[in-house]
Amino acid sequence: MPSISKKGLEMPESPIRKLVPFAEQAKKDGAKVIHLNIGQPDIKTPKIALDAVKNNTLTVLEYSRTEGSEVYREKLADYYAKHHINITAQDILVTTGGSEALSFTMGSIADNNDEIIIPEPFYANYNGFATAMGIKVVPVVSRIDDNFALPPIEEFEKLITARTKAILICNPGNPTGYLYSRDEIQKLAVIVKKHNLFLIADEVYREFTYDGKEHYSILQESGLDENAIMIDSVSKRYSMCGARIGCLVSKNKEVIKTALKFAQARLSPPTYAQIASEAALETPQSYFDDVKKEYVSRRNLLIEELEKIDGIKIGHPQGAFYCIAELPIEDSDDFAQWLLEEFRVEGETVMVAPAAGFYASEGLGKNQIRIAYVLDKDSLRKAVHILKEALKIYKGR
Amino acid sequence: MPSISKKGLEMPESPIRKLVPFAEQAKKDGAKVIHLNIGQPDIKTPKIALDAVKNNTLTVLEYSRTEGSEVYREKLADYYAKHHINITAQDILVTTGGSEALSFTMGSIADNNDEIIIPEPFYANYNGFATAMGIKVVPVVSRIDDNFALPPIEEFEKLITARTKAILICNPGNPTGYLYSRDEIQKLAVIVKKHNLFLIADEVYREFTYDGKEHYSILQESGLDENAIMIDSVSKRYSMCGARIGCLVSKNKEVIKTALKFAQARLSPPTYAQIASEAALETPQSYFDDVKKEYVSRRNLLIEELEKIDGIKIGHPQGAFYCIAELPIEDSDDFAQWLLEEFRVEGETVMVAPAAGFYASEGLGKNQIRIAYVLDKDSLRKAVHILKEALKIYKGR
Repeated sequence: MPSISKKGLEMPESPIRKLVPFAEQAKKDGAKVIHLNIGQPDIKTPKIALDAVKNNTLTVLEYSRTEGSEVYREKLADYYAKHHINITAQDILVTTGGSEALSFTMGSIADNNDEIIIPEPFYANYNGFATAMGIKVVPVVSRIDDNFALPPIEEFEKLITARTKAILICNPGNPTGYLYSRDEIQKLAVIVKKHNLFLIADEVYREFTYDGKEHYSILQESGLDENAIMIDSVSKRYSMCGARIGCLVSKNKEVIKTALKFAQARLSPPTYAQIASEAALETPQSYFDDVKKEYVSRRNLLIEELEKIDGIKIGHPQGAFYCIAELPIEDSDDFAQWLLEEFRVEGETVMVAPAAGFYASEGLGKNQIRIAYVLDKDSLRKAVHILKEALKIYKGR
Repeated sequence: MPSISKKGLEMPESPIRKLVPFAEQAKKDGAKVIHLNIGQPDIKTPKIALDAVKNNTLTVLEYSRTEGSEVYREKLADYYAKHHINITAQDILVTTGGSEALSFTMGSIADNNDEIIIPEPFYANYNGFATAMGIKVVPVVSRIDDNFALPPIEEFEKLITARTKAILICNPGNPTGYLYSRDEIQKLAVIVKKHNLFLIADEVYREFTYDGKEHYSILQESGLDENAIMIDSVSKRYSMCGARIGCLVSKNKEVIKTALKFAQARLSPPTYAQIASEAALETPQSYFDDVKKEYVSRRNLLIEELEKIDGIKIGHPQGAFYCIAELPIEDSDDFAQWLLEEFRVEGETVMVAPAAGFYASEGLGKNQIRIAYVLDKDSLRKAVHILKEALKIYKGR
């Protein structure tokens, strides 16, 4: 019998995948499961984007340009200009989701056994893309007690070797909700320039910043043109996760030229989704104002309710729509499974994402969970109540 | 300045990419360029597929399931049953184009420096996916004088090493149009079983077989369940290249389980395109009958006209919509560029794909071109006339 690759065996599973059968069983048994575990917003996609697809007049669904349509990239450049990011259409490669932009980036800058430093906890799929490309993720720990701020720059410096090719951050962060300050970005800029590394920033949550704080893109930092690679996506911005349109933006022409070769192999990004994404750029500011207001009030409610739980520790998110909570338990994998299998309040239970899957260092995050606040406030309030009641019983077992 | 990866530098460029600026310049100068170089069919997409997208009622464009929607995979299994392929929805992983199915397959079965044997000339992007994954393509030559039939099995056997993980074929073939016989598939089945290799077949042109010949899938071959991995796509079948929906089909559960981990990292295939692809399965047989009739008459015309050219040698396609022609020239790269830069017949010229890019062996295919007969017959007739006139002058320069 032919054998699976070593890489294939090492590919990580999604942190919640193994919980899915338990959630399905719970539903079969008649329970209602409130999902705090997934980052699929319930927010409506802008009508202008949905309508553009409904009203399309294509008769042959052709390949688009490999790098994305010229018009879309021109309009994207205008969108970035509004966010104080000065780039041109030539600096943009449209990809199939931010996912593909990450894969192309990793392939363009790192070879087998090369290393990329990432503050942990981090978006679990960074591990998947790295493993697929034969790249080693080197974690640097950020701490809930510091609200997951940038670890001291000396910690990065200690980890840099001849194999290190890049530092990768997510800003605002999934799963932490932490928003890096301008000062933190500048510290990173200094170190990547000093060591000739790339600085990759996943900025897909750019719009979702709270408490009057502004997002500072790595592309706003001057002198960083050769080092900065920005990853973006329409998924969260316009609640269009199913479109699968993202992009890679860099002023480093060699990076764009190389990533384009990876893109040529897969021909083109999806055509319908580009129609939706181009139209979505016309979404009025009021849409974002409303969405932001909604997320802020959800976050405030979530934090307020969580803080009523004895022995809990919470990262206070200033962006995105995730929050890491440290629970007075030992093993959140076990707790999450137990919730689905055994615990109900009036026929309802909660599904959470155990946080260990967001850490690369063995043993970290075992008492933490990630909560996505992409549900209405009533559901959130109910979910936290269930968590609170569950912990009383779980601890006493 | 941070440096591009070795892999990135080695990534091949599309064989026609370097001709594109010359085509653009020709158009700017007022010439009409007839494109024989791309496999983008002019055939209309089935209305049922286009309408399904126009009439969609989504309000939140959500992620789909990572493996593709359950309903779509169930219906796909029915489609395959009609083609004498007995599989279930669980054997199918829906991907973003056949391209992604190939990437996932390569990643699932081969590690850095492992080898995959492919008869050449082959679809150029196999090289791209292999390079991205750190895999070595080992070519085995098929010849225009044999109409690009399967090379003698001893030729494969000679190339098998401890590093060999799979044999990959495209059936019917791009760029050759060759349709492998049942006998040839069985020979491959014997050798992959003997050496514990995977047999990967790219069968995206399944419907396009001519002269009463039937397609024989590797999944029809009994005893090959653990070895066979089939790659498919809606792109050519329904003239939906821009959808970006394909799939990977295998009865080897470890393969599906492993490929699913690669799929989890990129979350899901595009939602709109799945709506179109599911609806396209209802396309009536008359659509394919018409399309096939059209391609046969185009192919017949193309071959008939090409054979009027002095010193030409032609592979006679029995499937797909490509044809390799060997011209009485030395360097088809130079010829193709010269056509775009200098040659016009009544203001028109032709763009062809130089065939060297479809070979991995250095120096092969330099006097060959690939012609895609995805244009109407008038354009094809005119294009071959231009080629014929061009060769008279080009040879005499």
